[in-house]
Amino acid sequence: MSFEIKEKDLLGRIGKLKTKTATVETPLLFPVINPSSQPIPSKRLKETFGCQAIITNSYIIKKRFNQIPIEQGGLHKFLGYDGAIMTDSGAYQILVYGEVEVTQKEIVTYQEGIGSDIATILDIPTGWKVTKEDAQITVAETLKRAKAFFDLKTRDDTLWVGPIQGGRHLDLVAQSAIEMSKLPFQIHALGSPTEVMENYRYDVLADMILTAKNGIPHERPLHLFGAGHPSMFALAVSLGCDLFDSAAYALYARDGRYMTENGTWRLDQMDYFPCSCPQCCSQTPQELKQKPAKEQEIFLAEHNLHVCIAELRRIKQAIRDGRLWEHTEMRLHAHPALLSALKRVRNYEDLLEKYSPTAKPSGFFYFNAAGLARPEIVHYRKHLTQRYTPPTNAKILFLVPQTRNKPFHKAPEMKKIRQLMRIIGPDLAAQIHVCVYAVPFGIVPLELDEIYPLSQHEAAMPPDLETINYVAEQTAEFIKRNNNTYQGTILLNDKKIWNNIIKDAVQDACKTKDLSFDSIETNPEKPKETLTQLTNTLHKQLNTK
Amino acid sequence: MSFEIKEKDLLGRIGKLKTKTATVETPLLFPVINPSSQPIPSKRLKETFGCQAIITNSYIIKKRFNQIPIEQGGLHKFLGYDGAIMTDSGAYQILVYGEVEVTQKEIVTYQEGIGSDIATILDIPTGWKVTKEDAQITVAETLKRAKAFFDLKTRDDTLWVGPIQGGRHLDLVAQSAIEMSKLPFQIHALGSPTEVMENYRYDVLADMILTAKNGIPHERPLHLFGAGHPSMFALAVSLGCDLFDSAAYALYARDGRYMTENGTWRLDQMDYFPCSCPQCCSQTPQELKQKPAKEQEIFLAEHNLHVCIAELRRIKQAIRDGRLWEHTEMRLHAHPALLSALKRVRNYEDLLEKYSPTAKPSGFFYFNAAGLARPEIVHYRKHLTQRYTPPTNAKILFLVPQTRNKPFHKAPEMKKIRQLMRIIGPDLAAQIHVCVYAVPFGIVPLELDEIYPLSQHEAAMPPDLETINYVAEQTAEFIKRNNNTYQGTILLNDKKIWNNIIKDAVQDACKTKDLSFDSIETNPEKPKETLTQLTNTLHKQLNTK
Repeated sequence: MSFEIKEKDLLGRIGKLKTKTATVETPLLFPVINPSSQPIPSKRLKETFGCQAIITNSYIIKKRFNQIPIEQGGLHKFLGYDGAIMTDSGAYQILVYGEVEVTQKEIVTYQEGIGSDIATILDIPTGWKVTKEDAQITVAETLKRAKAFFDLKTRDDTLWVGPIQGGRHLDLVAQSAIEMSKLPFQIHALGSPTEVMENYRYDVLADMILTAKNGIPHERPLHLFGAGHPSMFALAVSLGCDLFDSAAYALYARDGRYMTENGTWRLDQMDYFPCSCPQCCSQTPQELKQKPAKEQEIFLAEHNLHVCIAELRRIKQAIRDGRLWEHTEMRLHAHPALLSALKRVRNYEDLLEKYSPTAKPSGFFYFNAAGLARPEIVHYRKHLTQRYTPPTNAKILFLVPQTRNKPFHKAPEMKKIRQLMRIIGPDLAAQIHVCVYAVPFGIVPLELDEIYPLSQHEAAMPPDLETINYVAEQTAEFIKRNNNTYQGTILLNDKKIWNNIIKDAVQDACKTKDLSFDSIETNPEKPKETLTQLTNTLHKQLNTK
Repeated sequence: MSFEIKEKDLLGRIGKLKTKTATVETPLLFPVINPSSQPIPSKRLKETFGCQAIITNSYIIKKRFNQIPIEQGGLHKFLGYDGAIMTDSGAYQILVYGEVEVTQKEIVTYQEGIGSDIATILDIPTGWKVTKEDAQITVAETLKRAKAFFDLKTRDDTLWVGPIQGGRHLDLVAQSAIEMSKLPFQIHALGSPTEVMENYRYDVLADMILTAKNGIPHERPLHLFGAGHPSMFALAVSLGCDLFDSAAYALYARDGRYMTENGTWRLDQMDYFPCSCPQCCSQTPQELKQKPAKEQEIFLAEHNLHVCIAELRRIKQAIRDGRLWEHTEMRLHAHPALLSALKRVRNYEDLLEKYSPTAKPSGFFYFNAAGLARPEIVHYRKHLTQRYTPPTNAKILFLVPQTRNKPFHKAPEMKKIRQLMRIIGPDLAAQIHVCVYAVPFGIVPLELDEIYPLSQHEAAMPPDLETINYVAEQTAEFIKRNNNTYQGTILLNDKKIWNNIIKDAVQDACKTKDLSFDSIETNPEKPKETLTQLTNTLHKQLNTK
């Protein structure tokens, strides 16, 4: 097995990928090397930037240098780089120019000849605005070539990439993923996302990645071709991409563009460097603008690469901390088109929940309804729906609002509830089932509230309307599901935060299931009155007075 | 005038503050210097980190060194630092220890004697969990001391800070701000926010800052005492704070804590440095953990300071770009308690709108309803409500959904609308007023859609429910306001995105004002049918068929 998963969170993972030259850690960025024009020498990429791997285009190298790399003893010597080297095949040139002057046999043989650690078959990219019929042709032709490839290859020490095509036609992506997975590739790649990204259709990209991911074996790494901007690394990793290549760090630099993990500036528009990398600490934009163009380009390429590499370290630390969602949600606020991608994730929440760990080293942060797709929330909802039963004696469901402090049962407000239970006495108290309605889980039976992560989270208050609606819906569903247990519901209503939305939903649910219902307003100014009201209502519902 | 505002956005600004030693640029961080234990020498602060100013505590220096700084020729020589030096007065020690062994006269004279560039009166901090009565006393005593101070001071080349107290009692903060503003301080400060921040009550902090800000002259800089964590700089600057001091960079370092602009890690929990600063590029956490404690402390102090300084550069670039809201909204996703602060801002939207520029160098990004407090949106709503009148011939309000491309009138979908106008002919077309319902502005008359920023923004789609409700409300209000102009409304309804919420609101508004109403569903599959339906409905409402 060439790929070993060490840590995981969401669909992201930290892994070890073993190539014939070096074992590299994923998520991994392959800086693109152009042997004819390279702002950062490949040696420096490894020694100063710690790049464990690079990528170059075997088609272009073959056209320009033909047998020279082989005569020099292979690609590693030719490029002066002793880390892992991946090669692309010219498929991107097919996308851009329509065709290439090489056969698959030639380019497979060439990649083996120059000694690529990771190599790519000559697939046919689908592209962006392509009809379903044309997309179908690219998927079929890529699959045909993939099958034919296994008769062409002669070395066993190269990791081969099987690209998945289909573009924005998700049924074709699914089909491509399933068929390509049947072949013994060590790595898969999602083909032709470049135009999708150029059009800021990160929502479509999310659909494509998740559809591909759903079709391929979890234990094979996924490469996202052409995704070289650090603002989208977190999204791509969260959705299960392990490998990236970036020509952007160098191309942007040549064009005077300064990358950050949140977007791009043009150098000529900058007064301040919003970065602490060694380059940005060494001079100001005013000083850099005075320098020769070549010096500016090298500065920007080095800065751009620093940003990319630091962002991948941040992502790895987030995976290790179990906080990849938080990190990604924050990053997606760099652009509305990125945030739109997060909204698509709810359609794949089962996939995320399946692979994400359910216990984590730390609590989580909830901001708004975009977070409802979180594995922790989906997991709890499934648990509550499929496996939870209320305590046996429970007759009255007593719903109380969430408290500022957690766990709920230790919060100061709960003293009042315990006082109420003492007033009515242990026999009646045993018939009362206290549940908290709370962001973001909906309803939390008090006896569960120390189970991770029901108390281990922080939520932004006041909640957004969609989140309140979710809490209301979950609470109402809970009542409907357990209508044989309870004979009635009493709601302690916190109108200020919840705006009667919980109340209305609970009332409707009780009406539907013919349960008695009472609602009492919270009133921190008059705790005694509230207590008396609650006592009376409990007695009324239990018919004990 | 010692403070000159160069650029502004929201309540933040880039300014020049002239002190007797140096002119410094704001927003500015004063690293706290502890002469007895300083992980980064003050000389290095200036030369390597570019710190233009530092702060130290005159009370502690007086206690420990008494006349030595004066004998050595002043504080600048004593500390070996030739930038601007601010001194605190011991007020923080009053908050922590209840009292100090110095009178206001002594500490005012001492600060003048050692030659502070910026100095602080001995105010009485309010603190956090303080009753209104006790808070009132601190406000009154601070004001009394502030008034008395002007008879004590002897030098005219020192900038003096007049702190505003009141704590979480906003009416007291308002009163303190107004009264302190009447005195000729060059700088104000918001007192005692430390405990508010320690309790993660950034929502309360936002209330306090904005209340203070509302009371003091716009042209005086505001210092936020004790706000040294980079995750909150953006929030504080957006709300109008210009000056910060940080002991945290050093205190956190001593405690093994690693700051980022998004939160704090403990070094012992880190596998990766999520940063590109020179320190973090030079070694891994594994390597650092092997080093002696003192070396770790210096590493962390330098890293922490790099992060703080880079964040302030980022904020300045954001102000210059007119993108401080975007930057702040992104940063507030570091913690739910920070995001809660943003939700408070809607209560002060007029204040933000008053001081924020209305024309900007770039468009803006809208993510969800938290953005409805943006000055651009408030400004447009006021304009539409107070100064807009529909075209004179308008009889039918024709509401069409927003298009993906902007400006709306150039979008492909609008071709259909122009075709419709040709079908009904120029006379009838002149009676149709086309308006777009759109996130986040609500309703945009088509003839305005090139005015900034009605087309210069990107919104995350699909919109959140609160935003849809806002669009519905704005559209309904527009109809009710202009009910004398229109005799009817036709809605092209995009149910997929808007879920009939716009339709219901528009229908209600029309009913209330006795206007005719028709709704036609968008149907991209059957454009011809839609066109026929629209033509017929227009004729029907205009009684021309």
